[in-house]
Amino acid sequence: MSEFDFDINGIIETIKSKNCKIIGLQFPEGFKRKAVNISKEIEEKTGVSIIISGNPCFGACDLDTALAGKVDIMFHFGHSKMGKFANVVFIEARSNADVLPCIKIALPLLKTTNLGLITTVQHIHKLGEVTKFLRENGIEATVGKGDRRVSYPGQVLGCNFTAAHIDREEYLYIGSGIFHPLGVAIATGKIVVAADPYINTAMVVYPEKFLRKRSGYIAKAIDGKIFGIIVSTKSGQNRIELANRLTEIAKKHGKFAHLIMMDLVTPDQLLAFKVDAYVNTACPRITIDDAERFHVPILTPQEFEVVMGERKWDDLKMDEILENDVQE
Amino acid sequence: MSEFDFDINGIIETIKSKNCKIIGLQFPEGFKRKAVNISKEIEEKTGVSIIISGNPCFGACDLDTALAGKVDIMFHFGHSKMGKFANVVFIEARSNADVLPCIKIALPLLKTTNLGLITTVQHIHKLGEVTKFLRENGIEATVGKGDRRVSYPGQVLGCNFTAAHIDREEYLYIGSGIFHPLGVAIATGKIVVAADPYINTAMVVYPEKFLRKRSGYIAKAIDGKIFGIIVSTKSGQNRIELANRLTEIAKKHGKFAHLIMMDLVTPDQLLAFKVDAYVNTACPRITIDDAERFHVPILTPQEFEVVMGERKWDDLKMDEILENDVQE
Repeated sequence: MSEFDFDINGIIETIKSKNCKIIGLQFPEGFKRKAVNISKEIEEKTGVSIIISGNPCFGACDLDTALAGKVDIMFHFGHSKMGKFANVVFIEARSNADVLPCIKIALPLLKTTNLGLITTVQHIHKLGEVTKFLRENGIEATVGKGDRRVSYPGQVLGCNFTAAHIDREEYLYIGSGIFHPLGVAIATGKIVVAADPYINTAMVVYPEKFLRKRSGYIAKAIDGKIFGIIVSTKSGQNRIELANRLTEIAKKHGKFAHLIMMDLVTPDQLLAFKVDAYVNTACPRITIDDAERFHVPILTPQEFEVVMGERKWDDLKMDEILENDVQE
Repeated sequence: MSEFDFDINGIIETIKSKNCKIIGLQFPEGFKRKAVNISKEIEEKTGVSIIISGNPCFGACDLDTALAGKVDIMFHFGHSKMGKFANVVFIEARSNADVLPCIKIALPLLKTTNLGLITTVQHIHKLGEVTKFLRENGIEATVGKGDRRVSYPGQVLGCNFTAAHIDREEYLYIGSGIFHPLGVAIATGKIVVAADPYINTAMVVYPEKFLRKRSGYIAKAIDGKIFGIIVSTKSGQNRIELANRLTEIAKKHGKFAHLIMMDLVTPDQLLAFKVDAYVNTACPRITIDDAERFHVPILTPQEFEVVMGERKWDDLKMDEILENDVQE
């Protein structure tokens, strides 16, 4: 990941201009190995006291608020801004990977000449270049604004595809992994072409197999009597109102729903509770990515509504966390 | 573990008398499988709203303060009281295991007729019976008061052996596991006989092998240049003043010390940081029990002082957390 750069000089300037005495540094898992060297550089150049967060971190939704409460400024690395925390500064990671090669590979896969363009924050600075390139090839690309949980037009998160709610028949996603384009395909019901600038590939995303797998979990949970409704205390994941509403739905249908509140949600940690199924209101990726590691089915809120007969099976939606969903 | 009983009726009375609307339940790992049934019973008998803590929990030092902040009362199961939290009620676990059989096995191992008696909270209600039995066998047993971190005379924790600071030449420990009696043997430098009422065994504790192993870690850390000083934010483990003092010692000796703050301290989570050794100011048991699972040596504060030349090798002490050590 040497292709990522952080603006360390900007951090040093901020520390000096704000006259900080003690700062915090928080890194997501992929960048933690850089923590000690970055901390050393900042300390040597400013003399400030530094506390590094050792807690797991998987997103801008996952701020170390305990650490933020003990320092003048906490610098959170690798994600764009989310939420309103006065003393948290987000240090984004921008990739210098060239995105045009994978877009060239994607061109023959595109079906329309008027599509929506989406990406993750790592490549957000490349959207202008891509739009220009597509126009030269006869394709008009539109960048949706998204809601307040994203920082840039065209940006998608694993739990927020609002930048793709712009009424196009096709979306072109730039970035790695299948989760985001799959999410967009399900959230919009439209065609998504995913172009990966790290390995220079492009593919059309087909959500059918994924949806069949999810149907299996729904079917398994249908006879459940005892449900664990998971709520996270993480800064950008706390959907307690949704969890309370789901608990009421369970009661209405004569089921038992236990509200389980935690910080990090892991299959291991939930092994101990005797429930027939979990419903996850924390990070939606956990429900999908870790599904097979849970000892009982783990459902999205929408899937639970299907199980309870409160939502039609063919009205299933991708679980997203939107701008007014979270209690901070 | 069916031999443990919790006072559920007492909980129900408290909820009714305090007119609680919403309560929290926190269980340590060994009791989490009881959570759903206990929650169901309380809800059915009181109608109160309940949130169960899903976070890992390893002691009374490990309160779910986020949950406590959201409920009228949080009931914390399995440990005796620690700290000052107005709305936390501790529901102790008492074992009904018969302790006299293992004491009988211990009798021939005892060297003195005037010893100190210690145990964990699970067997604390049996100390009177044991004292009487020992007296009938010509042995005077004294129960030390301990400091404010323990709830009962004679009680020891994995990080607090102050109930054994009563100037006896020998201590008799009742309970399972080797950690507590080993800790007492090292903390006091006296003979400790450990009697286990679960498997009816008794043995003299020999700390030499353990101390040799620790010497190995100290030796490995002696050439270290970069140290990670771990501080926990857990309610009863936060020794930030100690951590700051250790950081100053490192600086004085030309070493680099990075303060790493976290909730749960695990080898996995610390794998990412590039340091030559860790110094753990959080739960002292982690340093000992998980030592082999860390990728670099992890030292107690006292061992780090030896490494820095600030403490003599033969003045090594067991790491304890005492009543004034913790920031709550």
